[in-house]
Amino acid sequence: MNNSSYEYLDRINSPSDLKKLSVDELEILCSEIRDKLIKTVSKNGGHLSPNLGTVELTVAMHYVYDTPNDKIVWDVGHQAYTHKILTGRKDKLGTIRTKGGLSGFPKRKESEYDAFNVGHSSTSISAAYGIAKAREIKGESGRTIAVIGDGALTGGLAFEGLNNAGRANRNFTVILNDNKMSISRNVGSIARYLTHIRIRPGYIKIKKAVEKVLIHTPVIGNPIRKRLLDSKSRLRVSVYRNTIFEDLGFVYYGPVDGHNLQKLIDALNASKNVNQGVLIHVITTKGKGYQYAENDPKSFHGISSFDIDSGEPISSKKGFSAQFGEVLCNIAEKDARICAISAAMKIGTGLLEFSRKYKDRFFDVGIAEEHAVTFAAGMATEDMIPIFAVYSSFLQRSYDQIIHDAAAQDLHIVLAIDRAGIVGEDGETHQGVFDVPMLNNIPNVTIYSPCYFDELRSSLYSAIYKTDGIAAVRYPRGGEPYRPSDYETNDVYSVYGSGKDAAVVTYGRIFAHAAQAKEILKEKGIDITVIKLNRIRPISEAAVEKASGFKKVYFFEEGIETGGVGELFYYMLRDFNFKGDFELTGIKDKFVPQSTVDEALAELNLDCCGIVNKLTWN
Amino acid sequence: MNNSSYEYLDRINSPSDLKKLSVDELEILCSEIRDKLIKTVSKNGGHLSPNLGTVELTVAMHYVYDTPNDKIVWDVGHQAYTHKILTGRKDKLGTIRTKGGLSGFPKRKESEYDAFNVGHSSTSISAAYGIAKAREIKGESGRTIAVIGDGALTGGLAFEGLNNAGRANRNFTVILNDNKMSISRNVGSIARYLTHIRIRPGYIKIKKAVEKVLIHTPVIGNPIRKRLLDSKSRLRVSVYRNTIFEDLGFVYYGPVDGHNLQKLIDALNASKNVNQGVLIHVITTKGKGYQYAENDPKSFHGISSFDIDSGEPISSKKGFSAQFGEVLCNIAEKDARICAISAAMKIGTGLLEFSRKYKDRFFDVGIAEEHAVTFAAGMATEDMIPIFAVYSSFLQRSYDQIIHDAAAQDLHIVLAIDRAGIVGEDGETHQGVFDVPMLNNIPNVTIYSPCYFDELRSSLYSAIYKTDGIAAVRYPRGGEPYRPSDYETNDVYSVYGSGKDAAVVTYGRIFAHAAQAKEILKEKGIDITVIKLNRIRPISEAAVEKASGFKKVYFFEEGIETGGVGELFYYMLRDFNFKGDFELTGIKDKFVPQSTVDEALAELNLDCCGIVNKLTWN
Repeated sequence: MNNSSYEYLDRINSPSDLKKLSVDELEILCSEIRDKLIKTVSKNGGHLSPNLGTVELTVAMHYVYDTPNDKIVWDVGHQAYTHKILTGRKDKLGTIRTKGGLSGFPKRKESEYDAFNVGHSSTSISAAYGIAKAREIKGESGRTIAVIGDGALTGGLAFEGLNNAGRANRNFTVILNDNKMSISRNVGSIARYLTHIRIRPGYIKIKKAVEKVLIHTPVIGNPIRKRLLDSKSRLRVSVYRNTIFEDLGFVYYGPVDGHNLQKLIDALNASKNVNQGVLIHVITTKGKGYQYAENDPKSFHGISSFDIDSGEPISSKKGFSAQFGEVLCNIAEKDARICAISAAMKIGTGLLEFSRKYKDRFFDVGIAEEHAVTFAAGMATEDMIPIFAVYSSFLQRSYDQIIHDAAAQDLHIVLAIDRAGIVGEDGETHQGVFDVPMLNNIPNVTIYSPCYFDELRSSLYSAIYKTDGIAAVRYPRGGEPYRPSDYETNDVYSVYGSGKDAAVVTYGRIFAHAAQAKEILKEKGIDITVIKLNRIRPISEAAVEKASGFKKVYFFEEGIETGGVGELFYYMLRDFNFKGDFELTGIKDKFVPQSTVDEALAELNLDCCGIVNKLTWN
Repeated sequence: MNNSSYEYLDRINSPSDLKKLSVDELEILCSEIRDKLIKTVSKNGGHLSPNLGTVELTVAMHYVYDTPNDKIVWDVGHQAYTHKILTGRKDKLGTIRTKGGLSGFPKRKESEYDAFNVGHSSTSISAAYGIAKAREIKGESGRTIAVIGDGALTGGLAFEGLNNAGRANRNFTVILNDNKMSISRNVGSIARYLTHIRIRPGYIKIKKAVEKVLIHTPVIGNPIRKRLLDSKSRLRVSVYRNTIFEDLGFVYYGPVDGHNLQKLIDALNASKNVNQGVLIHVITTKGKGYQYAENDPKSFHGISSFDIDSGEPISSKKGFSAQFGEVLCNIAEKDARICAISAAMKIGTGLLEFSRKYKDRFFDVGIAEEHAVTFAAGMATEDMIPIFAVYSSFLQRSYDQIIHDAAAQDLHIVLAIDRAGIVGEDGETHQGVFDVPMLNNIPNVTIYSPCYFDELRSSLYSAIYKTDGIAAVRYPRGGEPYRPSDYETNDVYSVYGSGKDAAVVTYGRIFAHAAQAKEILKEKGIDITVIKLNRIRPISEAAVEKASGFKKVYFFEEGIETGGVGELFYYMLRDFNFKGDFELTGIKDKFVPQSTVDEALAELNLDCCGIVNKLTWN
């Protein structure tokens, strides 16, 4: 794996090795780390821009802090590659994001240096504060440090954490990694506010300068000076409590140049002496050190393998996200009620073109999935048709808002659920396997699960125009799978084939595997019918009735079984006096680890091979 | 219903009638409204303190704004009784919180003056901003006003809303109803911050005064003055952008005395001319005007019927919340790892004594259910045992945190889920009917559902000491139900009776109804066995096997059917070749409206009578 040789990096096996180097040598180390990061991600895919932006910060942290006794909690965690390199995992970096390899995110089981598992945004302050409080109760020493980006700071959970952790004990530090954008450029007030305080280099110095001006201008006269500098003076309060973070009880340091090692080390060291919770505001550049990524940090945020010299992706195939964006633009052109909402995922969800064409009807709300749904519900009361495009695993954040703000008043909003099903290399935290059981228990919800682009289009039309209440359309990561030439799509359910030996029931892209399995099984003398549900909630009674005519019914589900479609389908078979055999193959009560999508589906017996085996073993 | 006669209130049938009165007359009106509020809530129960605190504010709003064209979005909504009185519903106030009567919360179907349904906290800014944006797109006029309490402001959703709505258009107003406490007294940074700005009456005046000092002190000298007052000057920026709300893009007005009608009217009128989003900070007193409620606003927050003269509740019976608090105190006494977390519900969840006895191990995190779980997960990594006590319907907020921060890294945290099942009078938004399907689809989760105090105690012990991962104990609102003398409890499942005619399977308090039904059925010649699940996830295979021996199995579930225990139980019966009849009675894909708990259970066929009927009709 470790095919390059690096002068300094080769000597670093743990953070203690770091402490033997001079700052000049650390700077060379940083460029070696960048080289390694670019080479690794160009091969394995992963998060490039965030990692290139945090090289110096991570080196400075492990240089100054006493890890792993001091605990670092990374927010989102997609910027922790350098952390992994420095904490004994550099030789395994080539395995990152592959089956059985290093995770692309911190994992407690992987290293004692990983204090908290992560993947979703905005959790770090809450988790770190929990750790800090527990250690305080136990009377243990050690600092806890949350590292959070400006994007993650827009999430309500981060604010709840800040609110609770304000005036924390002295061993609690928040490092705000301000890279001047969240995953998509942030447009909320916090982003504007950070711009405002970001342009004040030497903030602390300025405060002192103002004080000096007032003190050393004898002409002002003592009473006035006294009034202005009195500890209760509005002016003094204004000058000294000057950032939101100070208002929330933190001592504020910054802004600090996040690519200047010496300044970073000085700031981190200085903050260690403060007898209170500290927030250190560090300014970094996403993609730092790789021209293509610096110029276009968004495209290099999370990527597949690419060519280092040209910066071009090695393969690119039109995916469901792009198809969704196209269809939505077409609908919006003819219907002024259509609005699109994104939670800092404009590009990932295919909404770039929409955001340009329909600027007034596009809303990037920040990493704020809860707000996105409640905001959409508000729009819906005014007869607009809001479409919230969101990755399946991030929609988990909106469960209560979907119930309480949309479903309970039967408002019509559309959820465009991208990355539904197995997503692969990002692993446990990103698999889209909960959205079906999560939505299935909510009244007034309809769910469509297309397998092909034309089905996505018709599902989206049905969701927008033919469905009351909450209409969800869920589609997988990536592009179209195999499609048999004689497959005819239907908005509710399709029957493919007419074999009598067994019925295979499924939905979403597993249909493609079932259709392939059908051909293989036929060669083995087993003739099956595939029933493909396109609308999975409510389940069509006609589809259940069709299945009830078979002696053997096999249901394949790319999602958590409990509360999913398969169990409910079996329950509904009761109504048709089904007394045959039923077997459900889905995800049984576990998290699905990282691998390619194909590897995961094979492991879960949800690919063509798995389906064939299930039907021939029984 | 309307048995009192009021000089002014009797003339108010809509907000337009309000506008005919002088401010002096409005003040008399306010005292009449208070009288009506106290009389009504003393009979029906409901939210008293919040409503007594907002009488003047509500009158001023309807006096100044052009409702319903101007839209008021109430946060939480438990303070909207005066709003209902003023908007044509005063004669129906006696029906509030009863079956078929007025809701205790705003409901769009109830009145055109109710802009958005609500019940949970912190939604108002997001919803109101959605409404405002939709109207802006449609080119419609009209102001949108969110009214949010200081407690609700600690919720992350409110912050996400503020972040997105900052620099909103001119027709957007947030009224911060600062009653100096959330439901329990708030201890977070925002609470301290509000205390800080609350003590600055005449805030705007002070800013001008400071400016004046600087301008009219000729001795300062022009260069320095210029530097200090320059529009880019740090000092000027500091003085002018002085509250968090201004940092977030709002024009800040306040603080305003929320019980001074003239000042309220002036402030609301002044804010109408600002060409930007405005936040008006209003200071109110919870329980204002009723001595007992002013002295103890927490006890009069949400209450059952009480005696007006003494302030004493008419009936009081020990409930599950109190029992939980007692048991947890006992456990904490012997185990220093036990920590309790509340999301602003210290009293409601029975944790008052714990918070006094174990101050260092008690955490009130504000109305921040997401943070509560992630914070607990952080503590669990340090081998503490955090118990988050929360109402079932509010736990919906934590779905992603339970999956992502606790379950995915298999951390041991305990969820003490209060108000599980039907809660009754608070209606749709507060029914605890989703927690089971919500948790059922999450790996590494165990759920206990006790019916009696001794079961609560043993379940809690099992959850804390005998269960890995996430352990949930869910128990109903109110006290112990009927208990047959020969019932023997068991931590996993109990078999009650030995009738052969049918098995009734259930969990939680429905067991009490099933036990009663058993006796009635016996008189009718039907001899049943009741299988009571105490641990509902994972379901005991032995319990399923026991049920599989019956020809008829009836499952009764006080919760949403889809994704619940009943469907899964039926699916598991497959493994025991059960070919008999199975009937599930639960909540079918709908929200349960307000009524008493008994009325709701009867309506849902989940009470003794319903169970008897199900077994005799079939």
